[in-house]
This record gives sequence, structure tokens and C-alpha cells, in this order.
Amino acid sequence: MNTERLERQLAFIVELDKVKQIFRNTILMDTSRKENDAEHSWHMAVAALVLAEYADEPDLDMAKVLKMIVLHDIVEIDAGDTFVYGNVNWTEKALKERWAAERICSMLPEDQEPEFLALWTEYEDGVTAEARYAQALDSFMPLLHNYRTKGLQWQRLHVTRDQVLARNRRIERGSSALWEYVQNIINDAVVRGYLRQEEL
Amino acid sequence: MNTERLERQLAFIVELDKVKQIFRNTILMDTSRKENDAEHSWHMAVAALVLAEYADEPDLDMAKVLKMIVLHDIVEIDAGDTFVYGNVNWTEKALKERWAAERICSMLPEDQEPEFLALWTEYEDGVTAEARYAQALDSFMPLLHNYRTKGLQWQRLHVTRDQVLARNRRIERGSSALWEYVQNIINDAVVRGYLRQEEL
Repeated sequence: MNTERLERQLAFIVELDKVKQIFRNTILMDTSRKENDAEHSWHMAVAALVLAEYADEPDLDMAKVLKMIVLHDIVEIDAGDTFVYGNVNWTEKALKERWAAERICSMLPEDQEPEFLALWTEYEDGVTAEARYAQALDSFMPLLHNYRTKGLQWQRLHVTRDQVLARNRRIERGSSALWEYVQNIINDAVVRGYLRQEEL
Repeated sequence: MNTERLERQLAFIVELDKVKQIFRNTILMDTSRKENDAEHSWHMAVAALVLAEYADEPDLDMAKVLKMIVLHDIVEIDAGDTFVYGNVNWTEKALKERWAAERICSMLPEDQEPEFLALWTEYEDGVTAEARYAQALDSFMPLLHNYRTKGLQWQRLHVTRDQVLARNRRIERGSSALWEYVQNIINDAVVRGYLRQEEL
């Protein structure tokens, strides 16, 4: 066994433990606390399995979908989580995340580095069918949490219906069926008072 | 869209949010708190990607490995986490987990229920190459955490070298290379005082 090689791989795995300490604006279904990126990535992977039939393109490479999901948020170790309804500098965000991906993947042995960086880049670019489906789930999961917790975070963070619709359009690029469902629950959330129609 | 079908799928996904609240005896690498099952499953999936070359059997179906990893601990929603160095009734544990798997998977639409139950059962049986590799990682990850945190939990829970060696033999069934590494770090942990050679 090449011990130096294994030690590099383990250093990468240990570094990624930090993902468990990156907390998001999503609240757990029992409303007890915020969710972290590791939990979110795992839950997205579950959803990818259960909801696969709603991906617009058939015959997705599920191994690739799951790999991209597992890795998609590791860059937040350096770049932090972004509040998508805030005043975001998207160019700066993309740059910071790219640097993070390069720094973290460079911990791996040389032959693995490009493979992992390519998976993260494919997800981020959102062009392939697998990346579009994975991105759709990344947006879908927080909406599901918000709807099931009666808009707890939508209200705390003063989010409006138009913002939710505008910010989550990428769901439509991966799954028109889930987008249809999302439009229904957003409208229902306004009727039930979970989500504001417009700014006060 | 068949709304009733989607609602069943979403109920399953929402039920699985509880996995984020099942805390284990493993401590995070920064020693700040215990890890939960969702975080553990995600980290195991990362490790499965990085360490794939050490699986004893080549050409594993990685989609299946990742699916089994994502689902392997959902039964702990009902059955709870088991302290593997304790006085465990393994027959009772297996029975409780089987009931849990059946209860939770029955939330899915009828055509998906057998597929998900089969993935969980394949993992649990540990016969196929994919299941043996996944089980090896399930045992490997807590060892890595314990070694990197200087045996914090081994010491708190009065675990001995012989217990660690005996309880983790299934690593050898999935990856003889990782088992070789594990034996080395266990011996090193005894030398460094992270792990007791024997009962006091």
C-alpha cells in the first residue's frame, strides 16, 4: 500500500468534516435548529433517488448525480453559505467558490484532483442533464422545508413570493414537474399566510 | 402530474429529516459535538468516492454503493443508534431495524417500496461486493474520527484495543488495504495512549 497516497486522501476526507459546521438558513422540519451543509447534501441525495422520475431528461447517470450532490457544497468550507434572497455579488461568489474548489481538491493525489474538480465544475455549470437535475433539487429542498414549517424562515427573513419565484427558476431547468408543484405550493403559501405576496 | 404519488414521496423525504436528529457516539474532528446519522451518511459517501480504489473487488457499481450508503441508517429513526462496544442483543437489533425499514419504506408509492427495501436489505446482508465495501466504510469512518481526535471517545467509553479489532473485522471483508491501515493506526493509538491495550 502507498501510505503517502492514502494519507493525502484521508486528509481530504478529514478536511471535509468542516462541512458539518456550515449552517444554512434552512430550518429542520421539527423547527428545532438550522440545517448544515452535510445534512442538506445527504437529504438532497435521498430526494434524488426518490424523485428521479421527475427529471426532465430520462436515463440520467445516477452515479454522477449522486457524486455531484455529495460534493456540491464543499466549497462553502472557504466561501461560506450564501443567503440567496440577499444582496449577493454573484461574480464574487463564483470566484470565491472556484478558488475553494481548487484549494480543497488539490489536497487529493494528483490523478484524483481533476476528476473531483470536474464533478464540482459540471454541477456548477449546470449544463448537463445530471447537473440540471441536481441543481433543481438544491433549490427544491429548502422550499420544501419552508413550506412544511409554515414559512418560518420566509417570514423571519422577510422574503416575498416574487423573490421565491425569481430565485428558484432553475428548478424548471431540471424538472418541469417539480416546478409545477413548486408554483402550486408557493401560491398556497401566500393564501395560508406563510409567504408575503409583496414587500410591506 | 399524479399529486397523490408525489405527496407520498415527499412524506417519505420529510420523514427522513429525523435522521438529522439521531446522534452517534462519534465526535466531530474539531471535537465540538457528536455527529448525527445524516452527517455520517454524507461523509461515508464522500469516503466511498475517494477510497474506491481500495475496494477488494474491482468495477463496483458506484451508483448502488452510494444509494445503499444514503439509506443504510434510516432505520435508526425507529431503532436508534447502537453503541457497538456495548452489551448488544444483535438479534433484537436486527429485528427492530427490519421492522423500521418496512415501516419507513411503506410510506413510498407501492412500486418504489420494494426497490428501496431491497437496497437496505442488500446493505444489511453484506454479501454483494457493493454492500461489503459500504459496510467497510461504515466501520472505517468512526475509527478515523477516533484516531484523529486522539481517542477521545475510546477513552470516554473505556474501549480497548481487542474490542476495536474484534468489532471492526468487517472492514477486512470489503477492503483488505483499509484493514491493513486500520491495524496500523490501532497499534499506533495504543503506543500513543489514545486506546487501552486491555481492560483496567
